[in-house]
Amino acid sequence: MEILCEIITIGDEILIGQIVDTNSAWMAQELNKIGIKVKQITSVTDDRIHILNSLKEAESRVDIVLITGGLGPTKDDITKKTLSEYFNKELVLNEDVLNCIKNLFSKFGREINAVQVGQAMVLKDCIVMINDNGTAPGLGIEKENKLFVSMPGVPYEMKALMEKSVIPLLKEKYKTPTIIHRTILTQGLGESYIAERIKDWENQLPTHIKLAYLPSVGGVRLRLSAIGKDKNLLSKELKIQEEKLFPLIENVVFGYDSQTLEKVVLDILKIQNKKLAVAESCTGGYISHLITKVSGASNYFNGAIISYTNQVKINSLGVDNTDIANFSEVSEIVAKQMANGVREKLNSDYAIATTGYAGPDGGTVENPVGSVWIAIASKEKVISRKFQLGDNRERVIERASLNALMMLRKFMLE
Amino acid sequence: MEILCEIITIGDEILIGQIVDTNSAWMAQELNKIGIKVKQITSVTDDRIHILNSLKEAESRVDIVLITGGLGPTKDDITKKTLSEYFNKELVLNEDVLNCIKNLFSKFGREINAVQVGQAMVLKDCIVMINDNGTAPGLGIEKENKLFVSMPGVPYEMKALMEKSVIPLLKEKYKTPTIIHRTILTQGLGESYIAERIKDWENQLPTHIKLAYLPSVGGVRLRLSAIGKDKNLLSKELKIQEEKLFPLIENVVFGYDSQTLEKVVLDILKIQNKKLAVAESCTGGYISHLITKVSGASNYFNGAIISYTNQVKINSLGVDNTDIANFSEVSEIVAKQMANGVREKLNSDYAIATTGYAGPDGGTVENPVGSVWIAIASKEKVISRKFQLGDNRERVIERASLNALMMLRKFMLE
Repeated sequence: MEILCEIITIGDEILIGQIVDTNSAWMAQELNKIGIKVKQITSVTDDRIHILNSLKEAESRVDIVLITGGLGPTKDDITKKTLSEYFNKELVLNEDVLNCIKNLFSKFGREINAVQVGQAMVLKDCIVMINDNGTAPGLGIEKENKLFVSMPGVPYEMKALMEKSVIPLLKEKYKTPTIIHRTILTQGLGESYIAERIKDWENQLPTHIKLAYLPSVGGVRLRLSAIGKDKNLLSKELKIQEEKLFPLIENVVFGYDSQTLEKVVLDILKIQNKKLAVAESCTGGYISHLITKVSGASNYFNGAIISYTNQVKINSLGVDNTDIANFSEVSEIVAKQMANGVREKLNSDYAIATTGYAGPDGGTVENPVGSVWIAIASKEKVISRKFQLGDNRERVIERASLNALMMLRKFMLE
Repeated sequence: MEILCEIITIGDEILIGQIVDTNSAWMAQELNKIGIKVKQITSVTDDRIHILNSLKEAESRVDIVLITGGLGPTKDDITKKTLSEYFNKELVLNEDVLNCIKNLFSKFGREINAVQVGQAMVLKDCIVMINDNGTAPGLGIEKENKLFVSMPGVPYEMKALMEKSVIPLLKEKYKTPTIIHRTILTQGLGESYIAERIKDWENQLPTHIKLAYLPSVGGVRLRLSAIGKDKNLLSKELKIQEEKLFPLIENVVFGYDSQTLEKVVLDILKIQNKKLAVAESCTGGYISHLITKVSGASNYFNGAIISYTNQVKINSLGVDNTDIANFSEVSEIVAKQMANGVREKLNSDYAIATTGYAGPDGGTVENPVGSVWIAIASKEKVISRKFQLGDNRERVIERASLNALMMLRKFMLE
């Protein structure tokens, strides 16, 4: 029997178009992974009657209702009060939640006030899920054979609650079929090119193994899902399919499942016990940011020089000013000098350098907006490659950064 | 009387989380501008019964139902057939649509086949809206006093149809109220603290002016919406309310409407014709990334030194190694030396420096994870402040970066 879920998002900000609802897609993916199907996504206003009606309609349609938003401490947030009315359960103070809120505030050196105490009120007899990242807890309410869960709408609070509390609860409560996933992460080839390369393989997949293309910036994640009963058997089947797939796309695969390219790069640095430095022009700090987002990066990343002017390229990285004059700052020779320069200055084993036109202005006839030179250096050698990455500034920055990390990965593994 | 609208998106790809529904936010914004309120957004599966039920529910709730998706030529797209059933109107061939499809195909040198002829079938007596970008036309159906419009889900096809046909039709059919918005952007104070500060002001707001709190990382956007008839009068009323609000939160306001903090900072640099440099330790490049995401940043941003090791702080920024030994790298004196150092090295007017423990590891008893020193320097002086920013690595990085930009903004305006 299929387990059905409805996601209800509460709050005017989605309905006036101030924010795009990215939460629901993420939740739907996570639910899918454990074999629960999202039947409907409903966004409603911060209005009591409207919320009550949507709860009633959802209850008639599905087994599980996941509710996000409307849990802030201000008076336009009425989700909790309305749930209390819907389930006819009074609100009571929960000491555990109160202590968590106190702890959270003490980390910022602040005392809590009456408004925050209100955040510790929960529906009587509900399942309380502690929110480590904010003041609104997750609340689970069982009604007959149905489960309702209310969570805050702030994406990282909701995601942490889903992973820590909601998904484990759903797995326990519902006997879902066994579904196992394997995601192959690629970088550098568009969806339609990958589809073309692997179409014969895709056509021979057995019906209980599904393939999903999940596009991301400059890359595609290929998610294989096998559905059945026996986990070991499914694992073996997935492994066989993966082994057939791998040779077709080997040159663009960088990792698996929840890995990220920056984490893969740091893992290689760790294994080799090497240090990295970065010289960024057009990427403006984004490569450094991707790397330093990973905890533990400080052991393998010495630092970076963001050389947004030619003066900084010359003074801080040792780029030759006559080469800039002759070949312009967006050139192979400058990229290579930047990479060599930052590697030496920051006393590192490897270096990345980027120089290009992120747009929307700038660029030349030879090197229009989107032209980016990337160089990778070690003590022994320096390589470089030119990319053409479109004309959207943010996309150029992101794609150049990911291509640079992909180049470094291959360079280090050679 | 308020005109209410519901958006129904039809198609499995949203419900399995394969794509994020960006259409609805865009449509909601456009509807808002002409004073139509989106009451609900509903995403349903490609399932006949489910679509019929959602149409019935929407009809009971709102005046206008805008439907997107499920109009492709393949057999899983059943929107048109289901609308035909719902309204009890047969499908008939529309010659205008057929000619448009023929024209579209002739541009690619192709003939149309039976599948495309099917795209020219429309509900009898409906309002046909020609789609210049695809084969599925928009269809408007009036039922009693309500209006239903079906559009394709491909974003650029939907947007073109909305702009060319749907919005003009709605404006003509409904006498809509005027709604104007003003958003005040703040940084550095949580939602509950702001709510506490402005509660008396909030309570005195007239009923036709609404306040919404829209939280973001480390900041809150306060959106005022005024509804009525006379645009000029509403503008004046909003201005009066804004002037009453401003003194209450002056120290945390950095801008208005669609501005960003990094853009505001760049605008001040532009007005003053000054150059900025950044020295980042714990923020790892994120401040530089925020600034260089803005097009035109290269005119006012010289660059940055990401000093992720003490060696780089000493060698590239001129930080005193005995001060690091005596006070540790997370200290006021080091932050100030970093700011002064990068300002001089990169020949800039202003500089930002950050040093702290982003976590999850590291930190000391005195300076636990989340402790961040930020310094701002000009030629004349250097200021600094210590922050306590929680224990989530990504949040610490983001909050430290935004606090640094906020400090720089105030410093430059003094």
